[in-house]
Amino acid sequence: MAGREQCSMFLSRVNFRIEKKETEVIFLKTFYPTQVSRAKRGEATPQMEAVARDEEIAVEDVMECLADGTAVVPANANRSNLSVRGIGRGLKVKVNANIGTSEAFPHLEAERAKLQAALSAGADAVMDLSTGGDLKAVRSMVLEETPVPVGTVPVYEAAVLARQQRGAVLSMQEDDLFEIIEDHARSGVDFMTLHCGLTLGALEQMQKQGRLMGIVSRGGALLAGWMKSREKENPLYERYDRLLEIAGRHDVTLSLGDGLRPGCLDDASDRAQLQELLVLGELVQRAREAEVQVMVEGPGHVPLDQVEASIKTAKSLCAGAPFYVLGPLVTDVAPGYDHIASAIGGALAAAAGADFLCYVTPAEHLGLPGPEEVRQGVMASRLAAHAADVARGHKGACRWDREMSRARRSLDWWRQLELALDPELAGELYDKLNPGKREECTMCGPYCAIKVAREL
Amino acid sequence: MAGREQCSMFLSRVNFRIEKKETEVIFLKTFYPTQVSRAKRGEATPQMEAVARDEEIAVEDVMECLADGTAVVPANANRSNLSVRGIGRGLKVKVNANIGTSEAFPHLEAERAKLQAALSAGADAVMDLSTGGDLKAVRSMVLEETPVPVGTVPVYEAAVLARQQRGAVLSMQEDDLFEIIEDHARSGVDFMTLHCGLTLGALEQMQKQGRLMGIVSRGGALLAGWMKSREKENPLYERYDRLLEIAGRHDVTLSLGDGLRPGCLDDASDRAQLQELLVLGELVQRAREAEVQVMVEGPGHVPLDQVEASIKTAKSLCAGAPFYVLGPLVTDVAPGYDHIASAIGGALAAAAGADFLCYVTPAEHLGLPGPEEVRQGVMASRLAAHAADVARGHKGACRWDREMSRARRSLDWWRQLELALDPELAGELYDKLNPGKREECTMCGPYCAIKVAREL
Repeated sequence: MAGREQCSMFLSRVNFRIEKKETEVIFLKTFYPTQVSRAKRGEATPQMEAVARDEEIAVEDVMECLADGTAVVPANANRSNLSVRGIGRGLKVKVNANIGTSEAFPHLEAERAKLQAALSAGADAVMDLSTGGDLKAVRSMVLEETPVPVGTVPVYEAAVLARQQRGAVLSMQEDDLFEIIEDHARSGVDFMTLHCGLTLGALEQMQKQGRLMGIVSRGGALLAGWMKSREKENPLYERYDRLLEIAGRHDVTLSLGDGLRPGCLDDASDRAQLQELLVLGELVQRAREAEVQVMVEGPGHVPLDQVEASIKTAKSLCAGAPFYVLGPLVTDVAPGYDHIASAIGGALAAAAGADFLCYVTPAEHLGLPGPEEVRQGVMASRLAAHAADVARGHKGACRWDREMSRARRSLDWWRQLELALDPELAGELYDKLNPGKREECTMCGPYCAIKVAREL
Repeated sequence: MAGREQCSMFLSRVNFRIEKKETEVIFLKTFYPTQVSRAKRGEATPQMEAVARDEEIAVEDVMECLADGTAVVPANANRSNLSVRGIGRGLKVKVNANIGTSEAFPHLEAERAKLQAALSAGADAVMDLSTGGDLKAVRSMVLEETPVPVGTVPVYEAAVLARQQRGAVLSMQEDDLFEIIEDHARSGVDFMTLHCGLTLGALEQMQKQGRLMGIVSRGGALLAGWMKSREKENPLYERYDRLLEIAGRHDVTLSLGDGLRPGCLDDASDRAQLQELLVLGELVQRAREAEVQVMVEGPGHVPLDQVEASIKTAKSLCAGAPFYVLGPLVTDVAPGYDHIASAIGGALAAAAGADFLCYVTPAEHLGLPGPEEVRQGVMASRLAAHAADVARGHKGACRWDREMSRARRSLDWWRQLELALDPELAGELYDKLNPGKREECTMCGPYCAIKVAREL
């Protein structure tokens, strides 16, 4: 499509309605040229084409899912050199790695090491959740050095600012929060977690029923604290149109956070969680109407027998929006092994329809992870994502397993190591366990089933 | 019950039918006082009582499941000081750790280290799969130093003997195999994997359909090789009555192996596997009739979306016999992470009805594991078993998660570490990641959701 045509098409669909509300000007019903609006209008962007190549599907399929909101391609309009990832229906399940400083570990260099660990382990996206040290410097570094989509949770920065400037995390200012969101959007952040569905109604629901762990989402707790101490509605809900406007302008993908996600098995799938989810469903619809890319976040801690129902209910309530889960952890008792608890829940969740897995590291529930924990977390989530891809019948995923099995059948060790999920670790273990490097491995030796079968 | 009464009751139900077949004397319809026969006759043994205490259920429930064959309590009559474990319906899911020498690593001391690693990690059972060095010495050590049930795969020893005495693994002698089985039984082995369902018919089924990986069970390959090179039926199938007699006499629990278990996702749930399973179903029935304890082994490599159906079909075909799975691995591409692939499949399998998880270590598909891999394998399987226990509604399992969440809510670190699946690793990680030891951990610091919520 020629530039001139694009321009006139864009202008034709921009529809300003300026309204003065308190001190801010909100632009409503403003259609920006997001990936969604382009897909809806039949324009195949370079990002959609890259996704189609990566997934070995037709670009028309990518466009269809973007247009109907069942897939997103997080790609901030201000980012360059982004290696995009598609997330949603018909696409491979993707893996996000959370990094970021904390007050106890505020150093940029440590985050760089974790970022490199996440990327070399194969993360499809990285979220910078920093709350310590120079937040802007860390975010700049992450945006500069990350080829894949980058996400943030702007409310953290608002809480840090409040504590620095006013001495208390709950003294956050609404306008600061929106300015921080806009600043993140301008700087190139591709997707943002925003807990827009955490309403006073959902909090009331939670209080009425009672909970073992209460709120465990950090962003959720900050917002709930702010709301309850002021008896005011969640600004991210009340001023959602403003969010849509910012997101549309920069093509930021909204990731609607679940502030009331269950923090233990006992709290899973309760009324509070579902109440928030109902609101998130509405907000998905409004984002789609505004042609803003949107996905929805999910739990959390969920007993294994509830995972499938939990995901299917959420997907249904949110009209098939891409679903992004943190875990879910299928037990509360596994600190040090939460990457495995999360791999179990994540694989099941993704097989049931979740599209994006946020990794959990072995450091979860214990402290801020270091590079080694980051690496283990990404690998466990990639394994879960791949197992779900196979279950979802993704051709490329099934081919990978088949090729590995062929290499195994022919005892071709070089090829097996090359095809491994983590060639580096597999190679190290193979070398350690096979000092003699014979055709068969040291487990079975001359009793190797493959060799016995071959001799017949 | 007085000794005299027991004795007369035992004699009254012993029913010899002696028949001469070739050169051996088989005792058929001989009812020995196994845990099954005692349960059927209303006798609560100390082993049943121990299981009831361990599981916090009534001994009558244990007896009922033993009597109808839906649970087993592997406890060789010749073993003393055994800390028994119940496996099956209504009981917690149990975890087995495979250890054992190989030709490349034949040393007893290395096996002792692995045994200690398995036990300290909390394995419920240990199988000695040795094929290298002094097999009898290793088995004696394992039986002496293992408080929990011990299993073996006698066909390995038969293959080793054949290779030593006749120069080829497939030159195994039928009589040697049965003598080895009897020897294992006499020495106190509590359960044995015997691939009795691998018939010529199942092999033919496999050949007709074709397979990517063929046979990957070591015992299955040895037996199939023996059968095909001689064009003879599987002796463990043909002379199953003799097996039943040995098992009954020593109260060995038969673990009917799946010689045709799929070795890659592509081969899962195929006709060959199902053909063998049909035979195993018959053999379960015959074991029950002989009042011999029996469980059934399952796959293997199974795509995530097939796990539930696979387990439910197997359980149904085998009339609810306790089901013992190796994995299942939900992907073929994860050498170095197969303990996680197995935890995913194992959790799902156990939630669907599997009762006993054979661990898989990170060394799977790479070489013989060492103590570190053993430890990781047990922990991953224990996590999977526990997640399934919660899904199955086991009260004690749910209570454990609840207690952990209470400790978490009150930021009681000492209690959290004490309650952890692996207190040692959790403690190490906690110390490493929290140099300052503040009330909140280093991930969230002052933005800790629990602290924010508490302040309100």
